[in-house]
Amino acid sequence: MTVTPEQLASFFKKKGFIYPSSEIYGGLAGFYDYGHTGTLLKKNFENLWKNYFLKLNDNFFEIETANIMHEKAFKASGHLDNFIDPVINCSKCDFSDRADHFIRQELEQNVEGFSPEQLTALIQKHNLQCPTCKSHLKPVTVMNMMFPVNLGIGGKHKAYLRPETAQSPYVNFKLQYELQRKKLPLGLALIGRAYRNEISPRNLTLRQREFTQAELQIFFNPQKINLFPLFEAVKDYKLQTLLVEDRPLHTVVERTAEQLVEGYHLPQFYVYHLVKIQQFYIDVLKIPPSKFRLYQLNDLEKAFYNKYHFDLEVELTEFGFTEMGGLHYRTDHDLRGHQEISKEKMEIFDEESNSKFIPHVLELSFGVDRHVYMLLDQSYDDDAQRGNVIMHFSPSLAPFFCAVFPLVRNKPELVALAEEIYADLNTHFSCFYDPTSSIGRRYARADEIGVPYCITVDFDSLENDTVTIRDRETTQQRLVKRSELASMLSTLYRSSARQR
Amino acid sequence: MTVTPEQLASFFKKKGFIYPSSEIYGGLAGFYDYGHTGTLLKKNFENLWKNYFLKLNDNFFEIETANIMHEKAFKASGHLDNFIDPVINCSKCDFSDRADHFIRQELEQNVEGFSPEQLTALIQKHNLQCPTCKSHLKPVTVMNMMFPVNLGIGGKHKAYLRPETAQSPYVNFKLQYELQRKKLPLGLALIGRAYRNEISPRNLTLRQREFTQAELQIFFNPQKINLFPLFEAVKDYKLQTLLVEDRPLHTVVERTAEQLVEGYHLPQFYVYHLVKIQQFYIDVLKIPPSKFRLYQLNDLEKAFYNKYHFDLEVELTEFGFTEMGGLHYRTDHDLRGHQEISKEKMEIFDEESNSKFIPHVLELSFGVDRHVYMLLDQSYDDDAQRGNVIMHFSPSLAPFFCAVFPLVRNKPELVALAEEIYADLNTHFSCFYDPTSSIGRRYARADEIGVPYCITVDFDSLENDTVTIRDRETTQQRLVKRSELASMLSTLYRSSARQR
Repeated sequence: MTVTPEQLASFFKKKGFIYPSSEIYGGLAGFYDYGHTGTLLKKNFENLWKNYFLKLNDNFFEIETANIMHEKAFKASGHLDNFIDPVINCSKCDFSDRADHFIRQELEQNVEGFSPEQLTALIQKHNLQCPTCKSHLKPVTVMNMMFPVNLGIGGKHKAYLRPETAQSPYVNFKLQYELQRKKLPLGLALIGRAYRNEISPRNLTLRQREFTQAELQIFFNPQKINLFPLFEAVKDYKLQTLLVEDRPLHTVVERTAEQLVEGYHLPQFYVYHLVKIQQFYIDVLKIPPSKFRLYQLNDLEKAFYNKYHFDLEVELTEFGFTEMGGLHYRTDHDLRGHQEISKEKMEIFDEESNSKFIPHVLELSFGVDRHVYMLLDQSYDDDAQRGNVIMHFSPSLAPFFCAVFPLVRNKPELVALAEEIYADLNTHFSCFYDPTSSIGRRYARADEIGVPYCITVDFDSLENDTVTIRDRETTQQRLVKRSELASMLSTLYRSSARQR
Repeated sequence: MTVTPEQLASFFKKKGFIYPSSEIYGGLAGFYDYGHTGTLLKKNFENLWKNYFLKLNDNFFEIETANIMHEKAFKASGHLDNFIDPVINCSKCDFSDRADHFIRQELEQNVEGFSPEQLTALIQKHNLQCPTCKSHLKPVTVMNMMFPVNLGIGGKHKAYLRPETAQSPYVNFKLQYELQRKKLPLGLALIGRAYRNEISPRNLTLRQREFTQAELQIFFNPQKINLFPLFEAVKDYKLQTLLVEDRPLHTVVERTAEQLVEGYHLPQFYVYHLVKIQQFYIDVLKIPPSKFRLYQLNDLEKAFYNKYHFDLEVELTEFGFTEMGGLHYRTDHDLRGHQEISKEKMEIFDEESNSKFIPHVLELSFGVDRHVYMLLDQSYDDDAQRGNVIMHFSPSLAPFFCAVFPLVRNKPELVALAEEIYADLNTHFSCFYDPTSSIGRRYARADEIGVPYCITVDFDSLENDTVTIRDRETTQQRLVKRSELASMLSTLYRSSARQR
């Protein structure tokens, strides 16, 4: 039974995962809110991400920074000049669209990388008209995708909502380097919001105007990119790659880390992080290897400042393989830009190599909202036999790890015992209490938000001090002594985390 | 030895707590970044806050929402029309200021609540001139303190960065109520950013243009405000109050919860939450009772929609008692506003009381950045005897709970053992590893970022399998078997949390 994107969106809303922001006002295109289950899922993802990536090196740290930044920071980064989309406007009515999308749709021609002048020429050549009122279209212009914010009285001071979180760690780099051990590699991780005036926001949280990124910026000595001591331990690890050379057949090819270094001249430091990223998807997020791939971008596709760029892709039910993030070797592009505009020296003296240089940056970038969408998509299972949806979240991602149900509501001792057990479990686990409707209905509701374990308190509980644990995946139930409940759940939780 | 605010700011920066955002570009007034220690401190505060307030009721949930909201949401809330500051501009140069601040400074007269016309009249009467160029001042105007954000091509769709997080839960209320058990009280908690175009941002993170709020909005049946079952258990609790009637003597008076209800006609539901809030400050944040007070606002001071309003104040070294948050009984002001503008019914049918009504809202509001500043301020202690600053963070707030030091760097077995112990502890606790400089210097550095426990691995460790734990508060050291280290630290952590 296939489910349409609209049915999914409606289910995600009904279960409190995600829904349009400002919805009572008709929503706001490109903005979503997380309900009570979605918020827990998002936080769980963020915590897994932090635990994993911050622990790769004891010189990696998290920072938290303002979303609004100085105009000059975006002069330095190139966003002021280059973060633009081509736009087409009607000369009469208020129709407007992204020019490249419009032309691609009208002419079925790929115009990636075309200049505004080239796009205008195409429109004139084919005599394209406004699709709304059939009037003449104005020449193609460009629109900067950043949101300006004007500070102070009269908005005298121009600033911008950052279009990517990355610039915050770059601007913070020199200070953090001085505050820490003056040692490379230094990692600055940041989970925060970024903002883009997308012309066509779409597909729920896959392309929003306000979104959360989880990024790790690793500052390192470029002289050491080819030889990285930890590489040896991962050299035989098999990566799911789709390189530029694989495109004609469009198949994913398994290649060892060593093959990528030896056969494709990718640096050890870069490939090591490809390995760690794939391990995160497969071992931590539990994505089946067949649904994950590292997609290499070609020179036309990647940003000009990225020397190496692989997208991290997961296969979604509706959209196929979709970009979840990327591993970007941004060289010294950003720090050099900030040095030029701010006149602050970004060069450091590296004791270990006894040399001075501007560190290079390896960026591990993850779209958090995309991951939440992906986790919802991967977990969703409309089970015909049970007659309800099951969300197969792994226990470390599930919004609620357990639920407590009193079998009936009209027996005060039984309700009191259930409330006591709930209060106890709630101090250790993310837990919820549900006293209403039939047990079958309560199991179904728990399945729908992906609760791994449901604990039912029944008449036997009062007599024998036992409760029933029901497993979401198997629906099997087993009796457990109440005194052993918390430690048994802890074991279940830890073993699911260990299966990584 | 008194420390100036400038010295404090410099210390907070040097230790990676907080520093101006976009600093390499000269900073941006009213914007701060959190470094690696500040980020951990902020997250610890947020987690304590969530654990405490979400657990007050099993019908309280956290949500996470977009920072940019529909223009109409702020028409409904009143911010479009009323969230304004009076502004004065010079007729010649580009001097501008908040009109009320300017007049208060020039005339030493309190002009709170004056209209723009009244302020203009005062300026003309006293013939006040531009302080920069001595020219004529223009009539006072008003400036809306929200930041507009224009969406889409040509910025056709006007939206705003929210000036308070509260409006997000209000806009989400009806849906969340339907998704949950349709039961009151329903609590929606949100930790997120808010944005205000403050004319005079100042005092580090005490008044910023971009800031984080932690708020709990409780939707409840107004018929039940005076009788609240849980009140009985707290009625003898003593609250640190400064009521309007205490202002002449300006002293804090201890009053029991019951006294506030009986003697001052405050509702039980409201006073119960005053108690829970004070307990949070004293038992969880460990603020000495003498430095905390609940400050009642008078009718002129409180927002017109607040029926009851107490500020939550903590005494800061430099600024005296300072607003950290507030408990606001906002009645049905917000939901009614959203109902009027959105035409969505906010009225619900309450089964328990068999009646229909628009729920009322009790808002528990906390400024997160202010709390971080307060925790820094309260913990700071420039200790003459030790010759270094000690940050006396409670263990549940400390950025790092423990640190591991190898005594020397030139003995590989010793370094390997220290690294192993660090790796082990780092999976359980927030821990850092510091192998450089003398042990004394390392203890001092740990004191300066408030690490409660430092573990030193020395030559004895290799022979006897023991390590030394040093206590930040007493500087006492004790030998511990390595096998008992983790469980001992766990006990220390738990016992500090229990002392609440």
